[in-house]
Amino acid sequence: MKNTILIMGHKSPDTDSICAAIAYAELKKTLGFDAKPVRLGKLNRETKYILGYFKIEEPELVTKIIEPQSEDMKQDIILVDHNEKTQTIDEADNANIIEVIDHHRIVFNTANPLYYRAEPVGSTSTIVAKIYKENGITPTKEMAGLMLSAILSDTVIFKSPTCTEEDINIAKELEKIAEVSIETYGKDMIIAGASIEGEDLADVVKTDIKLFEFGTKRLLVSQVTTAGVNKLLETKNQIIEVLEKIMKEENVDGVVLMLTDIVLEGSELLSVGKYASLIGVGFNAKVGADSVFLPGVLSRKKQIIPKLTEILI
Amino acid sequence: MKNTILIMGHKSPDTDSICAAIAYAELKKTLGFDAKPVRLGKLNRETKYILGYFKIEEPELVTKIIEPQSEDMKQDIILVDHNEKTQTIDEADNANIIEVIDHHRIVFNTANPLYYRAEPVGSTSTIVAKIYKENGITPTKEMAGLMLSAILSDTVIFKSPTCTEEDINIAKELEKIAEVSIETYGKDMIIAGASIEGEDLADVVKTDIKLFEFGTKRLLVSQVTTAGVNKLLETKNQIIEVLEKIMKEENVDGVVLMLTDIVLEGSELLSVGKYASLIGVGFNAKVGADSVFLPGVLSRKKQIIPKLTEILI
Repeated sequence: MKNTILIMGHKSPDTDSICAAIAYAELKKTLGFDAKPVRLGKLNRETKYILGYFKIEEPELVTKIIEPQSEDMKQDIILVDHNEKTQTIDEADNANIIEVIDHHRIVFNTANPLYYRAEPVGSTSTIVAKIYKENGITPTKEMAGLMLSAILSDTVIFKSPTCTEEDINIAKELEKIAEVSIETYGKDMIIAGASIEGEDLADVVKTDIKLFEFGTKRLLVSQVTTAGVNKLLETKNQIIEVLEKIMKEENVDGVVLMLTDIVLEGSELLSVGKYASLIGVGFNAKVGADSVFLPGVLSRKKQIIPKLTEILI
Repeated sequence: MKNTILIMGHKSPDTDSICAAIAYAELKKTLGFDAKPVRLGKLNRETKYILGYFKIEEPELVTKIIEPQSEDMKQDIILVDHNEKTQTIDEADNANIIEVIDHHRIVFNTANPLYYRAEPVGSTSTIVAKIYKENGITPTKEMAGLMLSAILSDTVIFKSPTCTEEDINIAKELEKIAEVSIETYGKDMIIAGASIEGEDLADVVKTDIKLFEFGTKRLLVSQVTTAGVNKLLETKNQIIEVLEKIMKEENVDGVVLMLTDIVLEGSELLSVGKYASLIGVGFNAKVGADSVFLPGVLSRKKQIIPKLTEILI
């Protein structure tokens, strides 16, 4: 008997990684395959809210692929929302990657042909929803809800520069099936995810932090999406302390934090390290200020990293 | 004004490379894009027969991408039926690869997200035909004819082990639109392609020849598809001479030739070089024979290369 296909998003899963995996597994099952969504890490608050809202169970945690006893006992896996080796399950070489569904750049090599579907859209769930349509299958209310949530999350309710017309059109179709309102549900979802009540500030900053090299300078850049930047900034000193601690622990030249506010539609940029004032000047902060609000700035990839490159190299 | 998107198959183009490029360019135009199919080399006899049959012009020859004067003047290109750098147009880095449609293994890296569509089916044209359907567009008689021809060519009329149910189903749909019979048209097409009347034997052998390494042994393996192996074998001595000449010129340890007969549904395997008798024994040739007929063997990739690996390593 062929083993169950495991469908998984990337490590440190975000909403798209989890929702695309669940919705795609459901489609595979409808098409007659034995498939199961799994997760490679802890769910974030936003994803938990979404699964709770649509009453869907958390996928099982799987962290590595066990070496098979023989080649034909290899575990079949499908990667969604990622393709790079560094982002996938440990010991992935022990598995047989039969499909990839993704919306990121491609850094991928295989020995055999496989089903690989990448599109330059805002969210993997947009592609999964298209595959439902291509197969003539209408998703259930719950699956439509998960895919819609992932699109709203990845595109920050259509405001991110990564959002395409296709994301918006698919989201509007899913909105009807899911019986929610993009406007109100989307905000509730992002606010639920942005709540850091009772959470450790360092954990929050580390949730979506990535290392970038600018010439010889190594900086960590974190993004936290919220609906109440001003409330958060009441504890700015504590945040700065947390950033400085991370900088020392990780032995980097600086830490930059984007506090992205979905309601204000902009980001407060905080930075520590010896290039902090250089960064401040580059982003037109007031002299001496340790942070600056950037209206309209929502994307780390498209708006912050290119500017940091310009300033630091 | 945005430049015309060039759509291209691989170097030494086969029927699928050319037909998929033409049919996909036609679809792109129907969808409102400015697109044009091009070819990276001389058309083979089979492809010429097909284009003649459906009265479609040969795509223009393009062999390299000129360096653009600025980043935003980069030529947009779409790769069909290949993705590896070694198989694509020269100076491809000067272009902007906006899409890939393919059915081979993936050896591909990009800096940016793009539309990448690979499926493990017998022919790229099967995937192009699916994209027509997904967009709700019925191909013209001519485009259906080209895509059908490519599927029949790549799967040797459904007999290759690379052929999938999906290839067959799509081909049957295209058969109706193209108003031809798979049975008779397919054979006519393959016979037309297999005719080597008036051609240089060395050119024929070199049409589809690839270098493979088996441990430290380097062998060229060529495949020629025909409908009259026995007639060809009347000049076996000349063929052996041609193979020996290629072996010397290319400085390899041996040359293997598959003469695949679509009517007899098998391949005559000839080989020269110091491992020829070892290969003969491995394929159960009679002692002293310089070739052997292998019933049911149609695929180099799936049937010959794995066996050669077993014999030679």
